[in-house]
Amino acid sequence: MKTAGLSERLLDGDPRALARAISLAEENAPRAIELLRDVFPRTGRARVLGVTGSPGAGKSSLVDQLIAHYRKAGRRVGVIAVDPSSAYSGGAILGDRVRMQRHASDGDVFIRSMATRGHLGGLARASNDAIDLLDAAGFDPVLVETVGVGQDEVDVVKTADAVAVVLVPGMGDDIQAIKAGILEIADLFVINKADRDGADRLQADLDYMLTLGDYEDRPRPKVLRTIAVRDEGVEHLRDEFDRFLEREQGQRLERRRERSLARLLSVLAERLMARTLERVLVEDRMEQLVEAIAERRVDPYTAVEGIVEELEGR
Amino acid sequence: MKTAGLSERLLDGDPRALARAISLAEENAPRAIELLRDVFPRTGRARVLGVTGSPGAGKSSLVDQLIAHYRKAGRRVGVIAVDPSSAYSGGAILGDRVRMQRHASDGDVFIRSMATRGHLGGLARASNDAIDLLDAAGFDPVLVETVGVGQDEVDVVKTADAVAVVLVPGMGDDIQAIKAGILEIADLFVINKADRDGADRLQADLDYMLTLGDYEDRPRPKVLRTIAVRDEGVEHLRDEFDRFLEREQGQRLERRRERSLARLLSVLAERLMARTLERVLVEDRMEQLVEAIAERRVDPYTAVEGIVEELEGR
Repeated sequence: MKTAGLSERLLDGDPRALARAISLAEENAPRAIELLRDVFPRTGRARVLGVTGSPGAGKSSLVDQLIAHYRKAGRRVGVIAVDPSSAYSGGAILGDRVRMQRHASDGDVFIRSMATRGHLGGLARASNDAIDLLDAAGFDPVLVETVGVGQDEVDVVKTADAVAVVLVPGMGDDIQAIKAGILEIADLFVINKADRDGADRLQADLDYMLTLGDYEDRPRPKVLRTIAVRDEGVEHLRDEFDRFLEREQGQRLERRRERSLARLLSVLAERLMARTLERVLVEDRMEQLVEAIAERRVDPYTAVEGIVEELEGR
Repeated sequence: MKTAGLSERLLDGDPRALARAISLAEENAPRAIELLRDVFPRTGRARVLGVTGSPGAGKSSLVDQLIAHYRKAGRRVGVIAVDPSSAYSGGAILGDRVRMQRHASDGDVFIRSMATRGHLGGLARASNDAIDLLDAAGFDPVLVETVGVGQDEVDVVKTADAVAVVLVPGMGDDIQAIKAGILEIADLFVINKADRDGADRLQADLDYMLTLGDYEDRPRPKVLRTIAVRDEGVEHLRDEFDRFLEREQGQRLERRRERSLARLLSVLAERLMARTLERVLVEDRMEQLVEAIAERRVDPYTAVEGIVEELEGR
């Protein structure tokens, strides 16, 4: 399939062309860049909605129900699920995805898992590309689901137009550390599994923490309750997402600027590194440097200075 | 304090010089680079031990007890605790650190928290620098504690000479996803809070998962049980760490090569980016590009191509 043909089919919303295009973007293939250039003017339309939270919070069930509600409203729904990846992970991760399988035969739902590894620092780049490709193919909203720990995952989800942070009652003390890390990126809080013991306590904790936050420049996040597996409260969550986006047009633009900056920096970093590897770190030069550092003969700062001097042809 | 004076005091093991040096490294200050060059030949001696696991697994209590056992053996112990960071995090994170406060007045224990944010992609760089500084100051072992989700944290901990992954019984289904992400970096598994319901079940799950792994090139990880708050099993963990390092000399060298490679790449990436920002992205050039991308007038790949051309003086 030529790139031009692929672009056209993608813009027509063809799921197979979309799947192919996202794979190319994940591989950082030159064709992916052509493709993204082709379709870029047709992007920026989809609402990008982030769903993040601790492992065990029920994010996948929630996303599954959200898909159903957006489908009822006639929308084509894209999902990017960022998975912690592992050689061992088959079972566990597939388990999550299986919950969304009821949408598998629906051509207006496109679900894609992206592994956190194997992007050479480019997870943010690859997921942003995937969002654009879904957007260009006419999917709106694009839901981005990540585990809410780790800077990579936070970087991915925080550039969404709106972010829901999903919490669950009774996960113990240390869970506060996770909540702390993602509290500030939440536009909405969702207490899922809200029929469990501890839901009121969690709500009280959240309400207290929210009084500590600085909400001069943006609205104080609402706290919603859901029981995703019984589809309770999920339609309300969808409505709150939409309401947030309607109200926060200015903030949405600001987010898109942030996302543009993050993208520019990640594409630039990848390109600078690739260029250096290609020009200076040829043959076994890299291995030699690594060996010298491992044996403490050369420190990494001196090694980098040498590389940069060579790059500049000094 | 001049850099030379700081290096000397650091090599003498002065905790204040060490604290200052790590701060300089976190800030990526030019003086930190001088200092690291000075002390680099005196590094590579400390055992670097990683402790990682889900939030709530009791890593901090375990590290606290490990410190006590290494102190009993007459060692000077360094700890780098990588914390998910947040404007809100004061309470929760301090709570963890407070557990180690009994060592606060012990000059032979040095504990440093490092935030996951604010390193411009350089958490791995900063933590590696901190390990070297502790090493040069005579601390051995250096314990590195991280939450085991997120590529950043995994990158930090996986370069340790040995990694213990801490799990806890009864954290629900989805916890498998975390375990999956870090299974392959474990040299030892620790079932902490082993008096809880579900410890046998967790052990059985782990044993099963370990049968799926590929352990031709390295030993199959042992599964240990601890109750850190009661100091049960922690001395055994310390012994198993030491036993692992004795047996796996070859693997330790391989890890150090990996760590050297990761360091070289992260220092190089930071340097290339800094150089580009300084030379090309001056004044409001960056803002203009970001605006153009946000408004979909220019795609990020075309923007980066322009920057690279300019860098090369074409």
